[in-house]
Amino acid sequence: MVKIPVKVAVNGYGTIGKRIATVILKSSDFKLVGVAKYTPDYRALVAAKQGVKIYVPREKVEAFRAVGIEPEGYVDYLLEESELIYDASPAGQGAKNKRLYDKLKKPVVFQGGEDPDIVEVSYSTLCNYSSVQGKRYVRVVSCNTTGLLRVMCSLGVESIRRVFATIVRRASDPGEDFKGPVNSIKLDLERIPSHHALDVRSVIGDLDIETVAVAVPSTLMHVHVLEVLLKDKCVDVSTLEKLSQGRIITVDSRLADTTGKLIEIARDLGRTRNDLYENIVFTNTFTCHNNTLILVQAVHQEAIVIPENIDVAYGIMNLDTDVYRVISKVNSLLGIGVIKQIFYRANFT
Amino acid sequence: MVKIPVKVAVNGYGTIGKRIATVILKSSDFKLVGVAKYTPDYRALVAAKQGVKIYVPREKVEAFRAVGIEPEGYVDYLLEESELIYDASPAGQGAKNKRLYDKLKKPVVFQGGEDPDIVEVSYSTLCNYSSVQGKRYVRVVSCNTTGLLRVMCSLGVESIRRVFATIVRRASDPGEDFKGPVNSIKLDLERIPSHHALDVRSVIGDLDIETVAVAVPSTLMHVHVLEVLLKDKCVDVSTLEKLSQGRIITVDSRLADTTGKLIEIARDLGRTRNDLYENIVFTNTFTCHNNTLILVQAVHQEAIVIPENIDVAYGIMNLDTDVYRVISKVNSLLGIGVIKQIFYRANFT
Repeated sequence: MVKIPVKVAVNGYGTIGKRIATVILKSSDFKLVGVAKYTPDYRALVAAKQGVKIYVPREKVEAFRAVGIEPEGYVDYLLEESELIYDASPAGQGAKNKRLYDKLKKPVVFQGGEDPDIVEVSYSTLCNYSSVQGKRYVRVVSCNTTGLLRVMCSLGVESIRRVFATIVRRASDPGEDFKGPVNSIKLDLERIPSHHALDVRSVIGDLDIETVAVAVPSTLMHVHVLEVLLKDKCVDVSTLEKLSQGRIITVDSRLADTTGKLIEIARDLGRTRNDLYENIVFTNTFTCHNNTLILVQAVHQEAIVIPENIDVAYGIMNLDTDVYRVISKVNSLLGIGVIKQIFYRANFT
Repeated sequence: MVKIPVKVAVNGYGTIGKRIATVILKSSDFKLVGVAKYTPDYRALVAAKQGVKIYVPREKVEAFRAVGIEPEGYVDYLLEESELIYDASPAGQGAKNKRLYDKLKKPVVFQGGEDPDIVEVSYSTLCNYSSVQGKRYVRVVSCNTTGLLRVMCSLGVESIRRVFATIVRRASDPGEDFKGPVNSIKLDLERIPSHHALDVRSVIGDLDIETVAVAVPSTLMHVHVLEVLLKDKCVDVSTLEKLSQGRIITVDSRLADTTGKLIEIARDLGRTRNDLYENIVFTNTFTCHNNTLILVQAVHQEAIVIPENIDVAYGIMNLDTDVYRVISKVNSLLGIGVIKQIFYRANFT
């Protein structure tokens, strides 16, 4: 067993990196050595103000000092001092960083923007927790793929004959407001299927799945329309919820029928950065007859992969072999369960 | 046979009414007696400026004069003088107008916002042109339903085993900019299926179809993601295009991958009100294998029902029993065919 707390570095401090750092700071099983930051932008200023230790490249020290940030040290030191590295750099940069990681001989958790080929395992907790033990390079799949896989692996891959999903994707994250489309609906694929089906198959090799994606002018969550053909018999929505170990919750759309209202609930409940870590399935869109399950769910693109990013650290560092115990620990760290209670009480019948 | 030109009244002058009026003014088979207008708003002012004859209720004459519009006469006169009435009033108002139409004993074409129960036939040209001959009350189904039915009836209903469609709906028309959602994705159904499946079945009684709809912050067209399980063998996209008699055209999404770009093309080509009367199927999203057809199409909500509204007049007035001749006549009246040529030349291979 590895000594606790495990020392962690977060390389990159964007949408995902800053969220991982926040959770690591709260955990007693992990210790944040610091984060690597490459640009002295508003995110760096906020991190510094919050007391996050910032490591920068040698040649950037003066640029950071110029905006009033005194770096803790160089990135090399951060990575050498840590036992586990999260690579949360922009899509594609992780692959370039790999040459450096190869020398360090430390386990690295990559994000969904990287190519599956650069890692040993593409990962989603409910699908393949046990496969990451002792691995060096693991990739937590992207937000949409995580949202899809939670449903599929809760149902049980062996029970599924075929999946057809339409992904109505938010155009950009709130802070990336330079991205389109503006007042338009954009095809987010060049051919059928969209890359999401391929990404799902990076975890579940032989699943018969087709996905189609469009991007819409919104910054608040994705929406998935899912048709799942089951091999055997139907399930009800509360069974799905139970099988997901808290990672899928349900709401009646008469209570909240827009992604905007869901985010508002997260804000009102004081969730950090108004993050929704759970798939939110609209109960009254859930139907299952003739072995055909249809559902609509909302997926918060900035937050959905965070639980899986923490789960995977328990697996990769061999801290716990029991996936349910790990999920339960991470759920309680993130406050997963509270929103479910509120929705449950308010649900219509 | 009825004497040509057939005298036509358009009762209501919103999104649909004004478009029907524009086409009737161009046709030699029909003569526009005038339009009924109930509010002296910007639409009335534009119509007056364009020389459209405006009829108003007795009690509204002074209100229209106050904004500088001299009404042609009362609504009663307009309806009594006409041989065919288009009811283009807001959803639900058509049902209320029916008491008046019952007295007039004239054929009326209602719009998709009305309940199917108030008419004898719910109509879409490629599905049931011949069924409207001599009928009094016919309803042209709504924009999304028209877009779906054109695909299904081009393929042939008897060849379809099952349809699953996701409708990514524009929030509102450009002029109705008070409607939401703003920066959010809204569930546009209370349960599965959305009302669109029911509306499709108002034309094709026993089709196995499920639809799910979400509304997004856009004013420019809907996008449909369609999965059609065929009974027998696959078709290719050019066959579908051919079978649709020009009502479905194709574009490669590498040429135009957003609804905004499609509307821009309609503007550049000088289409009246930048209207796109055709379903626009993205060729590179069209796949068919194992009898399963998947496609993505854009549907211009303001314009898509206009061809069917003119077709139906030929049927209901018994002017022509040959649906292909009627479609060809209406296509050339609307300029359908021009955009197809441009897309065809520009398509990638």
